[in-house]
Amino acid sequence: MKIHAQAAMQAKGELRPFEYDPASVGPYDVEVEISHCGVCYSDIHLIDDDWKKSVYPFVPGHEIVGRVAKRGALVTHVKEGDRVGIGWQRSACLMCDECLRGEENLCLTQEATCVRHHGGLADRIVADARFALPIPAGIDSAAAAPLLCGGVTVYSPMRRFRIDASKTVGVIGIGGLGHMAIAIARALGAEVIAFSSSASKRDEALRMGAHEFVSSTDVREIKKLGMAIDLLLSTVHVKLDWVTYMQTLKTNGVLCFVGALQGFLQIPPLAMMNQRSVVLSEIGSRSAIVDLLRMAERHRIVPEIEVSPMAEAQPAIQRLRENKVRYRAVLANG
Amino acid sequence: MKIHAQAAMQAKGELRPFEYDPASVGPYDVEVEISHCGVCYSDIHLIDDDWKKSVYPFVPGHEIVGRVAKRGALVTHVKEGDRVGIGWQRSACLMCDECLRGEENLCLTQEATCVRHHGGLADRIVADARFALPIPAGIDSAAAAPLLCGGVTVYSPMRRFRIDASKTVGVIGIGGLGHMAIAIARALGAEVIAFSSSASKRDEALRMGAHEFVSSTDVREIKKLGMAIDLLLSTVHVKLDWVTYMQTLKTNGVLCFVGALQGFLQIPPLAMMNQRSVVLSEIGSRSAIVDLLRMAERHRIVPEIEVSPMAEAQPAIQRLRENKVRYRAVLANG
Repeated sequence: MKIHAQAAMQAKGELRPFEYDPASVGPYDVEVEISHCGVCYSDIHLIDDDWKKSVYPFVPGHEIVGRVAKRGALVTHVKEGDRVGIGWQRSACLMCDECLRGEENLCLTQEATCVRHHGGLADRIVADARFALPIPAGIDSAAAAPLLCGGVTVYSPMRRFRIDASKTVGVIGIGGLGHMAIAIARALGAEVIAFSSSASKRDEALRMGAHEFVSSTDVREIKKLGMAIDLLLSTVHVKLDWVTYMQTLKTNGVLCFVGALQGFLQIPPLAMMNQRSVVLSEIGSRSAIVDLLRMAERHRIVPEIEVSPMAEAQPAIQRLRENKVRYRAVLANG
Repeated sequence: MKIHAQAAMQAKGELRPFEYDPASVGPYDVEVEISHCGVCYSDIHLIDDDWKKSVYPFVPGHEIVGRVAKRGALVTHVKEGDRVGIGWQRSACLMCDECLRGEENLCLTQEATCVRHHGGLADRIVADARFALPIPAGIDSAAAAPLLCGGVTVYSPMRRFRIDASKTVGVIGIGGLGHMAIAIARALGAEVIAFSSSASKRDEALRMGAHEFVSSTDVREIKKLGMAIDLLLSTVHVKLDWVTYMQTLKTNGVLCFVGALQGFLQIPPLAMMNQRSVVLSEIGSRSAIVDLLRMAERHRIVPEIEVSPMAEAQPAIQRLRENKVRYRAVLANG
């Protein structure tokens, strides 16, 4: 039975219906009947071939939630009918140093769900079951989807830098990633400072869980914070006054860019003193996804989403391109 | 009784004999009869007022070893006659967040041994006993001196980034700091790769404990290493091809600059992928000094030093300026 998907036929192309024959279900695979798939800005980068690795027809989608329809002979952790989630990553060698220490998101031979593979904007997908993680019963499928890539992308550095109830997290940008970062940092018990260029987002940021709101472009207001922040997550793609932001970090504080960073980073050594550092972070491990889902259930971390039918994938992509989505788009089957 | 010291009378001045009245020994102080004091390149920065905070007459010296001659009423961890070491730092508040977690080297109100205080190129010094650390019996006083600043400066990042016998450390520059870094990394059980621009240092680097020697300027040879290094310590002040060096880092690898870094650091985001990072590191905590001294005794980490009489402080400084010291200069009293 063919898989019915939404695909771009060439770079920057609009999504349209596309059918393909699924791969057979190998011993470690599952076939998942997709109920929901989130849309992430990286899908647009892939549609547009910004990273020069897209193959067309290209089926986006890597925030997949669905039920196991078929499982391979060696799959034991899920069974037919179980609800699972698949994020950015679809495979890793599972035997290199990185994989063995539970950091298979750093595996050098990993593959991505929708790079050279057809993604989740479809009715079904065949994937490596070892990257299909059970969704806790208390989480709504639509709300689970954005956690699988966007959510874990902001959670992963909080975990890496040991954010807990004694720490302060700054979140720059209140969009798809930023709004989840606020909720996750809050669930971890941290003090949360939200930064946005749009003053109109103050009330929303506070409602989402931020304790404080600061204009992301008002240097004077930022400086008033002093050395306040343990982990400052930038979810934005614009260039801000990073040297001023570094000054808001405590000793050992970290400025972490998630998502794609444009251009060279120029940091004066003085700003890096007191053991402050600048790092990048991408996606997260399976363990981080599992922990995030557990936390999301326990602390009711619910991404704010716009749900549309899978057949309306193209309008959803268009809204995302126009920065109109509040805050994350999810497509639903059936 | 006056303290007899060696001081620069103005910026860039030569050291000459200088006498001053010691401060009285407060309840937490010790007066130390100095046997040895190391000379560090930062003494030259202070003599030259490069950091715009020197006060003249300026007495350099912050790698001090000697015996307690007098102790304040509240000092209990050392007694008269005990051998102690004092490094770069002479005080901290001991109550801020940093101090409480054993990182008083990051205390924002710390004071340095020879900044706005007379340093260790002298026969005696009065200092806060809480920064005068016992020297283990098995370490020679002259050899202990360079460990107190230079040694802990390279050891501190190895500790921060958990270097052990499963890790690989790269050391760029085989000078005062670099040669100690090789010995310390080796004592920790790590694989050690030494980088130097001078091919003539190959045999010396291997004798000091390096497992491998690579030309620090031969990009082709550096690239051959692949992703091999967990912690790459740069002890040099020249600009090298940092992007190529970043590529020698494993996932989670760290490029750490010790000592003063010139100019802005320009790192392309791609080089920072795989959770690689670039950090600075300065000095180390008292706990790190104590652990380093313990390791030095156990594993016979003995800096290679040139010892001269205290009265010949100026020629020693001059040799250091001319980069002629192999590998660390120490001045001795009596």
